[in-house]
Amino acid sequence: MLATQTLAKIQLVVFDFDGVFTDNFVYVNQDGSESVRCLRSDGLGLSRLENIGVHLLIVSTESNPVVTTRANKLKIKCLQGVKDKALAIKSICHEMDIELAHVVFVGNDINDIPAFKLVGFPVGVADAYPEVLPYIKIQTHNKGGCGAVREICDRIFEAKHDLKSKIFQ
Amino acid sequence: MLATQTLAKIQLVVFDFDGVFTDNFVYVNQDGSESVRCLRSDGLGLSRLENIGVHLLIVSTESNPVVTTRANKLKIKCLQGVKDKALAIKSICHEMDIELAHVVFVGNDINDIPAFKLVGFPVGVADAYPEVLPYIKIQTHNKGGCGAVREICDRIFEAKHDLKSKIFQ
Amino acid sequence: MLATQTLAKIQLVVFDFDGVFTDNFVYVNQDGSESVRCLRSDGLGLSRLENIGVHLLIVSTESNPVVTTRANKLKIKCLQGVKDKALAIKSICHEMDIELAHVVFVGNDINDIPAFKLVGFPVGVADAYPEVLPYIKIQTHNKGGCGAVREICDRIFEAKHDLKSKIFQ
Amino acid sequence: MLATQTLAKIQLVVFDFDGVFTDNFVYVNQDGSESVRCLRSDGLGLSRLENIGVHLLIVSTESNPVVTTRANKLKIKCLQGVKDKALAIKSICHEMDIELAHVVFVGNDINDIPAFKLVGFPVGVADAYPEVLPYIKIQTHNKGGCGAVREICDRIFEAKHDLKSKIFQ
Repeated sequence: MLATQTLAKIQLVVFDFDGVFTDNFVYVNQDGSESVRCLRSDGLGLSRLENIGVHLLIVSTESNPVVTTRANKLKIKCLQGVKDKALAIKSICHEMDIELAHVVFVGNDINDIPAFKLVGFPVGVADAYPEVLPYIKIQTHNKGGCGAVREICDRIFEAKHDLKSKIFQ
Repeated sequence: MLATQTLAKIQLVVFDFDGVFTDNFVYVNQDGSESVRCLRSDGLGLSRLENIGVHLLIVSTESNPVVTTRANKLKIKCLQGVKDKALAIKSICHEMDIELAHVVFVGNDINDIPAFKLVGFPVGVADAYPEVLPYIKIQTHNKGGCGAVREICDRIFEAKHDLKSKIFQ
Repeated sequence: MLATQTLAKIQLVVFDFDGVFTDNFVYVNQDGSESVRCLRSDGLGLSRLENIGVHLLIVSTESNPVVTTRANKLKIKCLQGVKDKALAIKSICHEMDIELAHVVFVGNDINDIPAFKLVGFPVGVADAYPEVLPYIKIQTHNKGGCGAVREICDRIFEAKHDLKSKIFQ
Repeated sequence: MLATQTLAKIQLVVFDFDGVFTDNFVYVNQDGSESVRCLRSDGLGLSRLENIGVHLLIVSTESNPVVTTRANKLKIKCLQGVKDKALAIKSICHEMDIELAHVVFVGNDINDIPAFKLVGFPVGVADAYPEVLPYIKIQTHNKGGCGAVREICDRIFEAKHDLKSKIFQ
């Protein structure tokens, strides 16, 4: 089955946060607080997907207020302090009655490998660590925090749109 | 009519904010506040235009304190939380008695398309989304937040200056 | 006279701030405060110059707390809200009994032109606006905020060092 | 002896902070506070090294709250306001009974030269100042703040892993 056909059937997109919604950098302020840099236009891609019924989720190893802040702004559900991302995704899918074959996971580093191996459609960002490349199906053209999220949203949106056009022909 | 001749007659320049005054990134602080990165030298270009009577306006979909902050610093009028930018521009032009033919709109993303279609001189930044390219007249050489604002200001300023020189010859 | 010989006689280095100590960007926070990005290694170059008796001064058109903050950290005297930089430099030189021929001014934008024309050794940063190029003697290899300050400090330091070596030979 | 063989015996890795954990830039806020930009993925490399018993230390010339903040987050010991890094490293090694031959020092600027000359395995980041190149054994492919820390951690980790594999063959 082609990537486009698989993408048309996606029901849930799970994102790692650092290195996916961000460029993997963190701004450390001397008061101990942290900031990250995100792309404004991710929001447009995410809301288009949500409007057609695709579920979205952020799963992050670290537990960090910036993740909550960004997730709230984008109105996406978010799990933090997740030691085992694969287990968390499995349990969410069971709960929501979604087949793992219809799940995208977007990540960038070696601690994402178990999640890549679990889901039907594992995606790496353009600047993912080379060690993860054997475990992903496609790699985005854009780097993490620089359009990777918008790109994968747009691809799923278009795949679903194309499918719908064909059904109604 | 050449671009320069049209630019010489511009009475109002309307700017989208994110992706035009900024590089479309947002710095998310863990306390929930946001920051954006702007170019200092935009100010010089904007004030030169204002000094020769060109009206300036920022129109933004989001309602965000950083937009207010930057607009105040640059002393530019600013409309936020604008769901329909085209409608807002039409109403402003009516109010100020300015023909749409003498309006520039500078934008970057798909939600700017109605405004691009409305005004006489639609401008896209160098890194505008490819989907908007069919709707713009010129594209700046500089990216959003990296000189696009200064560049369009300088082009209008020079076009008006050239016209004036010819009139007084 | 070669650039190196002139640099060896420099007694005062005057810097514009935005676009010289910074990359000309400003981070606008939603609480209205501003931040800028500077290079840590500028400090080493500046203190080496000061240790051999070269005077340093920052002159800025804007009046801004970030300039004060950075100047204090680098322990450099700083004049802000200066509408006429050339006049300010002239008056400082008179006060300190320094000839304008022995002054470097480092700038980047069109509002620096009067100062460039005044001093003996006008320097533009690598990313200075093209309009200023006719008024400068040398252009740094490094961009503003990215090594331009350290580079000009190192060049003056080495020119003075070479001269001293020759005198004591 | 090859670099890999030497790296396999490393017991302590000492890092300069600015220009190594960061890109050597500092964000100056108008309230006088400072921020720096670090790479999230450094943490993974550092914790892997610590788990196999390698000691880690940050030694910084400046005394700055951002260094403390980052060091605490990464759970690395940190010495600040250190005028003589070489002396500090010598004293630490004596205290911990570690031979200087088994120490890596990672730095970037001319004030790191005495430390480079002291330790068995001096490392410069990709964007180290040219003046330091004669004093280092290897230069990382990644720039400071952009993967240099993770890269040297991964190289030591792999060298030790390879050695262990050979011993147990």
